[in-house]
Amino acid sequence: MKRLEQFWRLADLPREEIVDLLALAARLESVGDPQALAGKILGLLFFNPSLRTLASMQAAMAKLGGTSFVVTPGGSSWKLETGDGVVMDGSASEHVREAIPVLAGYADVLGVRAFASGTDLAADLSDASFRALAGLSPKPVINLESAIDHPCQALADWKTIDELGVARHGKLVLSWANHPKALPLAVPAAVLRMAALRGMELTVLRPEAYALPESLLAEARNLAAGTGGSIRETDERPAALEGAAIVYAKSWASAANYGDAEAERTLRAGLDAWCVEESWFENAPGARFMHCLPVRRNVVVADAVLDSSRSVVVRQAHNRLWAQMAVLHRMLAGVSAGLRQEGATIPMKEKR
Amino acid sequence: MKRLEQFWRLADLPREEIVDLLALAARLESVGDPQALAGKILGLLFFNPSLRTLASMQAAMAKLGGTSFVVTPGGSSWKLETGDGVVMDGSASEHVREAIPVLAGYADVLGVRAFASGTDLAADLSDASFRALAGLSPKPVINLESAIDHPCQALADWKTIDELGVARHGKLVLSWANHPKALPLAVPAAVLRMAALRGMELTVLRPEAYALPESLLAEARNLAAGTGGSIRETDERPAALEGAAIVYAKSWASAANYGDAEAERTLRAGLDAWCVEESWFENAPGARFMHCLPVRRNVVVADAVLDSSRSVVVRQAHNRLWAQMAVLHRMLAGVSAGLRQEGATIPMKEKR
Amino acid sequence: MKRLEQFWRLADLPREEIVDLLALAARLESVGDPQALAGKILGLLFFNPSLRTLASMQAAMAKLGGTSFVVTPGGSSWKLETGDGVVMDGSASEHVREAIPVLAGYADVLGVRAFASGTDLAADLSDASFRALAGLSPKPVINLESAIDHPCQALADWKTIDELGVARHGKLVLSWANHPKALPLAVPAAVLRMAALRGMELTVLRPEAYALPESLLAEARNLAAGTGGSIRETDERPAALEGAAIVYAKSWASAANYGDAEAERTLRAGLDAWCVEESWFENAPGARFMHCLPVRRNVVVADAVLDSSRSVVVRQAHNRLWAQMAVLHRMLAGVSAGLRQEGATIPMKEKR
Repeated sequence: MKRLEQFWRLADLPREEIVDLLALAARLESVGDPQALAGKILGLLFFNPSLRTLASMQAAMAKLGGTSFVVTPGGSSWKLETGDGVVMDGSASEHVREAIPVLAGYADVLGVRAFASGTDLAADLSDASFRALAGLSPKPVINLESAIDHPCQALADWKTIDELGVARHGKLVLSWANHPKALPLAVPAAVLRMAALRGMELTVLRPEAYALPESLLAEARNLAAGTGGSIRETDERPAALEGAAIVYAKSWASAANYGDAEAERTLRAGLDAWCVEESWFENAPGARFMHCLPVRRNVVVADAVLDSSRSVVVRQAHNRLWAQMAVLHRMLAGVSAGLRQEGATIPMKEKR
Repeated sequence: MKRLEQFWRLADLPREEIVDLLALAARLESVGDPQALAGKILGLLFFNPSLRTLASMQAAMAKLGGTSFVVTPGGSSWKLETGDGVVMDGSASEHVREAIPVLAGYADVLGVRAFASGTDLAADLSDASFRALAGLSPKPVINLESAIDHPCQALADWKTIDELGVARHGKLVLSWANHPKALPLAVPAAVLRMAALRGMELTVLRPEAYALPESLLAEARNLAAGTGGSIRETDERPAALEGAAIVYAKSWASAANYGDAEAERTLRAGLDAWCVEESWFENAPGARFMHCLPVRRNVVVADAVLDSSRSVVVRQAHNRLWAQMAVLHRMLAGVSAGLRQEGATIPMKEKR
Repeated sequence: MKRLEQFWRLADLPREEIVDLLALAARLESVGDPQALAGKILGLLFFNPSLRTLASMQAAMAKLGGTSFVVTPGGSSWKLETGDGVVMDGSASEHVREAIPVLAGYADVLGVRAFASGTDLAADLSDASFRALAGLSPKPVINLESAIDHPCQALADWKTIDELGVARHGKLVLSWANHPKALPLAVPAAVLRMAALRGMELTVLRPEAYALPESLLAEARNLAAGTGGSIRETDERPAALEGAAIVYAKSWASAANYGDAEAERTLRAGLDAWCVEESWFENAPGARFMHCLPVRRNVVVADAVLDSSRSVVVRQAHNRLWAQMAVLHRMLAGVSAGLRQEGATIPMKEKR
């Protein structure tokens, strides 16, 4: 099976490779491989908070016999600068151009979390910032949520949907939900791509003002074209939800007001009915409720939904573990000690 | 030997099981068991600061061949909500009803630290909050200090007292001490129960205003009835200390002013003589000084006492390591990989 | 080979032992020793932020089969008091006189980072504070940067200079550089000692106001006397740089204004030309650029220098890993389990 060189985007992998990864995830869940990554080290670089990712990445390495270290710039580590050509006389003590190659040298693989700017939509859509960070690493990089993707979540979600017995072309409704803050587009974009790659009938349900950026929809339609899937957007809730196998809730910022907190607040003033209630499922009684977590109860979704057997949010989170183990395994297992040592020995011209 | 299913309270265990745990702790200290928990993972969830517990729990897992991960809500992880039915439009991004089952799925055992509210005495005495948190975990939970108990500390203290050669019915004086803050009742309650279970003659020495809640004393008297121990309270220092084998100092909040910081300050104004001095030991020259740490020098206890051979506070802290290793061993050692996998695979109806 | 008892100062070791450590570092880099420290635990105590040290110490233990735990006082652990005889009624909950022996009991070796006070030059020059902290540990201590030394950095730098093929008596220019803050003398002092011990021709290039304290220079001259090295100070840049094999940039506080932030600001007002530029290398075209990191781009050194093949700063950082592995190996490898157990079992009179 092909070695995985990077894990920046799920959509960079051919569908067959994803299916293989899911099979590996299932095998690791059922029988394990406790020494597969003995001696291997995962470096975790978190520019933003984390609960699931922090814990599940460390657990994933441990279950494969490897170890991890965690670096939080601005927490117990120096604040890092990312801008090019900056005169660094402010609060940042170090530049990512040093920090990332340095950390990569201590590890066999780096996981990097760097959320969206939330202010520059074009930059966030292009994932320019994550690409710049990941490009600084001479070792493989796993995207732990960037401005516009969250491939570990997408892989775990795919696994969850498979386990639920949802048909390949089953209907997934991605619904916008209310939230006190303007949130990134990373998870909606990841769900869009995942559903398209899996071949699903995807309906994006949202208030008109929360239409997804056209480039995201176009990318998803392009992916769906190869898998028999389909994508449509609507603000008509009952029609959207009818026959859904999955209702995936997530809040995101409006493209029109991107970076304008005041305008966002105004826009959301009348939208608190966008909290998923049990009544939403009238015409989709067997539908499962999904969310990437963290989720705000009784804002994004009602207690009654989350606490019912309809909800599979904890299962999604648990599948992060097995999905990430598969990714790490495919990247590092069987890479010989010799090769590893070579990788760890940095040549003189290590600068980019 | 019986597998330990939970470690919420020491007093939930029969005395013989505690004695067995102490024997196991001694064996792990003298000969070790370095692969006993190979492949096992401890998740550590700290709602409050920690030094000893953070380090000793990780060291305990490492010495048994296992690994750990650490999650600090409000630190590098999301702030968590604990209230039922809350509309989560504030600063907490996630509810413990999701977070705890999620983290449990990445681990074989969870350690949880959640200090007392300090405002609602009845709730703190009932440990309602910890019970609610721990009840959310499908995996065993170790109490790393809750509102009203600290069983790891109690087990380590028992080990320490045994090592000092104190007779089963030896005299332990639990003395209130001054402190700039109103502190929880968790450690005094844990000492009370431990001394009662061990069968000791326990004297609680405190200013009248710091009388322990009657429910705690009643519980301890009940435990002591089965072991030949005894419990009394007094504010007469010389009589209390006479013949003590152990003087265990600890500050705690007054029940009457619970949650009223101003009233507490006033109450303590004249109590700075409640700092343990060498002179306290005039009629108990061989008594050892104990404290759970962290301890404020020259407020709770004078340098001269802490720096003398009378003090065993560092030894108590070191015994945390062996005591916790025994708890982890009794919970997880010999639990087969098959069983573990089964535990780690979350069934569809994972929600409570 | 002799076991290393402590690693407080590189200059405490005879030159031959350092050369042996470097040979061991090279061996660990090329062939590894993945089980050498199986079962051993490193405790890391960080009073100050860290990126490289935090990650590389954990990676070093992992690559030798051991494990680590991290404690950050004032972060997720209690704030610690260091003063003698203090009445602890302020913000610190615990004294290092308890915390350090406690943590040492959970570990086989402690790493401690405690930066300079920046206010008391004499105390910082004597490293009184680090010596007091390290002296509290019954286990070996590794200095992870103290007020006046950074021996892990120095060892890594020596390895880097060797790998660059610099002659034993090659010329190293340690140049002061501009910086928004008054920084400690630890790294300049460490470079001074390292270059002297290696036998190099060392030129300290700095504005007159940044002359290094005479005691540091005297110590280095004394070391150089035994190795054929030499030390001089100057503020004449072109002459200083001519023929340099290495230009090592670092900012530091002026001795005259030590602790006076306002005076420092005034002093630096006209010194922004002390940013290393490519033009500095006119008469040393083959010279390599070194810095311990973190480095502020375009304040300490221009992008053009850092991004050229002249810069070896990332290589220096990577050599931290191998150097520290050698130190840990020399301290702990082959120390039998029996001995380790004995060390970990704290005798009754554990207090100092």
